[in-house]
Amino acid sequence: MLNFDLQLPSRIHFGKGKIGELGKEILQYGTRVLLVYGGGSIKQSGLYDQVVQVFKDNGIDYEELAGVKPNPRISSVRKGIAICKDKNSQLVLAVGGGSSIDCAKIIAAGAKHEGDAWDFFTRKARINEALPLGTILTLAATGSEMNGNAVISNEATMEKKGTGSSYLIPRFSILDPEYTYTVPPEQTAAGTVDIMSHVFEQYFSPTPGTYIQDRMSEAMLKTCIHYAPIAMAEPQNYEARANLMWTGCLALNGLLSAGKRTDWATHDIEHEISALYDITHGLGLAILTPYWMRHVLDEHTAVRLSEYARQVWGISENDNMTAARLAIKQTASFFKSLGLAASLKEIGVENIRLEEMAQKAVSSRELGAFKPLHYQDVLEILQAAYEGAEL
Amino acid sequence: MLNFDLQLPSRIHFGKGKIGELGKEILQYGTRVLLVYGGGSIKQSGLYDQVVQVFKDNGIDYEELAGVKPNPRISSVRKGIAICKDKNSQLVLAVGGGSSIDCAKIIAAGAKHEGDAWDFFTRKARINEALPLGTILTLAATGSEMNGNAVISNEATMEKKGTGSSYLIPRFSILDPEYTYTVPPEQTAAGTVDIMSHVFEQYFSPTPGTYIQDRMSEAMLKTCIHYAPIAMAEPQNYEARANLMWTGCLALNGLLSAGKRTDWATHDIEHEISALYDITHGLGLAILTPYWMRHVLDEHTAVRLSEYARQVWGISENDNMTAARLAIKQTASFFKSLGLAASLKEIGVENIRLEEMAQKAVSSRELGAFKPLHYQDVLEILQAAYEGAEL
Repeated sequence: MLNFDLQLPSRIHFGKGKIGELGKEILQYGTRVLLVYGGGSIKQSGLYDQVVQVFKDNGIDYEELAGVKPNPRISSVRKGIAICKDKNSQLVLAVGGGSSIDCAKIIAAGAKHEGDAWDFFTRKARINEALPLGTILTLAATGSEMNGNAVISNEATMEKKGTGSSYLIPRFSILDPEYTYTVPPEQTAAGTVDIMSHVFEQYFSPTPGTYIQDRMSEAMLKTCIHYAPIAMAEPQNYEARANLMWTGCLALNGLLSAGKRTDWATHDIEHEISALYDITHGLGLAILTPYWMRHVLDEHTAVRLSEYARQVWGISENDNMTAARLAIKQTASFFKSLGLAASLKEIGVENIRLEEMAQKAVSSRELGAFKPLHYQDVLEILQAAYEGAEL
Repeated sequence: MLNFDLQLPSRIHFGKGKIGELGKEILQYGTRVLLVYGGGSIKQSGLYDQVVQVFKDNGIDYEELAGVKPNPRISSVRKGIAICKDKNSQLVLAVGGGSSIDCAKIIAAGAKHEGDAWDFFTRKARINEALPLGTILTLAATGSEMNGNAVISNEATMEKKGTGSSYLIPRFSILDPEYTYTVPPEQTAAGTVDIMSHVFEQYFSPTPGTYIQDRMSEAMLKTCIHYAPIAMAEPQNYEARANLMWTGCLALNGLLSAGKRTDWATHDIEHEISALYDITHGLGLAILTPYWMRHVLDEHTAVRLSEYARQVWGISENDNMTAARLAIKQTASFFKSLGLAASLKEIGVENIRLEEMAQKAVSSRELGAFKPLHYQDVLEILQAAYEGAEL
């Protein structure tokens, strides 16, 4: 186990009716709020009206940045920053999934920054300050509600990049599983894959001796595997929605990465795909993950992959390599059973752009830590995933 | 899953050499510190000298409250409060295990309170304020380093009681597994049982639908079972010490109890024993736990107890009741394998005082939530544990 520092300062309000905490939370920071959200779903569900009612009841002035898209754009961020600066906003409130939250995070930082917000992603500028941020979560997926990370796309440069800072950690997050009742099955599936991928990126690590972190990772994977089909079949199953929502939050708040090196190669590769094609992040991950597993499998990594096989899938096969292969197939079957595509060509990715994506993915560094990847590795993973090759 | 609120604000500095963070942490709060510790072990290990050196290097004035005993006494707390008030201390720093930390917590609260500190335990007074608190942990057991709970004994009234407040949560805790290298095998065993008992008290719950919490509980139990024998056989095994230390911290910081009712009957019964007999808390828990499990086992609770059997002990028996019984026996065998006593009479508890303990345990309320206990239940558990009856 490696040394680590950890603090989890977000106040989590979890459960039915927890929007009752919203007014009190906002008033700790001020009365001028920028409300950030995506499409019309929070209007259809009535959540938008509830939030506005809280503003009215508590004398809170608000501006809106609506229409934040999946794979949120730096142009939306810039709009939000302009509003905050113009209206002297005191808090940014994201209502939605990871896209709205990530967008709100960079707005919060950009509102306290002189230059352009894309500078945070090119390392031209550091985040040294940010407006306080609160979130109301409507999708179990990114874990952005309890961490300081954000991923933003630059439509001009066709790049998708991440940044992180403790200043971006939400002060509070309201997690009401009922707000995810309206999430359609395909988004529930993609969100669950995103959660599982976050766990994989931290579980598959070269750091030895991280037994407690690894057993907790398996706990979260089992939860996703157990509840995703239930939530898809019964969208209003509170137990399923609650377990997925809380697991999504725990999966990327620092608990699983504490004390170990993490991988993130699959995410990095997926980011290159969704920078070029506006596909759902979780869908891209579902296609890539089994091929990443298959590519990194060797005598050495088979130890961990077979542990995954036995602990998560209950595979009793004794030979590590065989157990690992079975687990990889099982992983792909599970994603397929959720109705997700199993090849990049099915979702419109073009063969001719694979080399470009591989090149971009490794442009600044080798990828991953469990088994470091170079250009040829990434290309092979992309090609196999493109074809939906036999695993 | 029930509604919950959760925040984990303690800054955890985990790993070798993390005492390097101490000076910077203290100086955030001031330069006048009360140092609270137990016996001479931190002097023998050299940790005391390291801490004093940090004080000197950073211009920090300190007073000492030494000699805090296991099952810390309210008299020690009162001494510490007097020093804080006299010297106008700005931070209380506990160096040791749960006893020193719990003592320091109530000193921190008492320093900001007019009346007597025992009032916090009789509910005559509420904790509305406290000095900032930091800890350097030297024993993996109580989890006190990342929560707001404290248990104190009153030698005058022969009572042992707990209290809790968010004001008592340490601002920072330094967890260096190397500081536990000198913990002798019997204390390593007792500390591990304490951790496992914390998990049991939260795992065995009447709340349905807490899948993620339950799988995380099993992760922590498996870690304890895996590493306790290793840490006892190889006291300087960093991996074992690190996993036990981090698990002890995670087991009682709020993660496992979030969203569910918790039990705590075994702890409540043990407190009555250690209020009368100054025995090691973890040892008392090791003796009581299997008899508590056996007593609460019925057709209804067998569902969860058999889940414990299968997930933690790998018992493949299909019948719930049989699986549960096997797991209870396995639990007792494991504690015995750690060299712990298996009956109350072996450790000097007297038969004639069992009724008094049972009476006190249920004096203000029924005990537990998994299966609520009344006087006769508690007495039967104590009698079976006294004899070390067949399980």
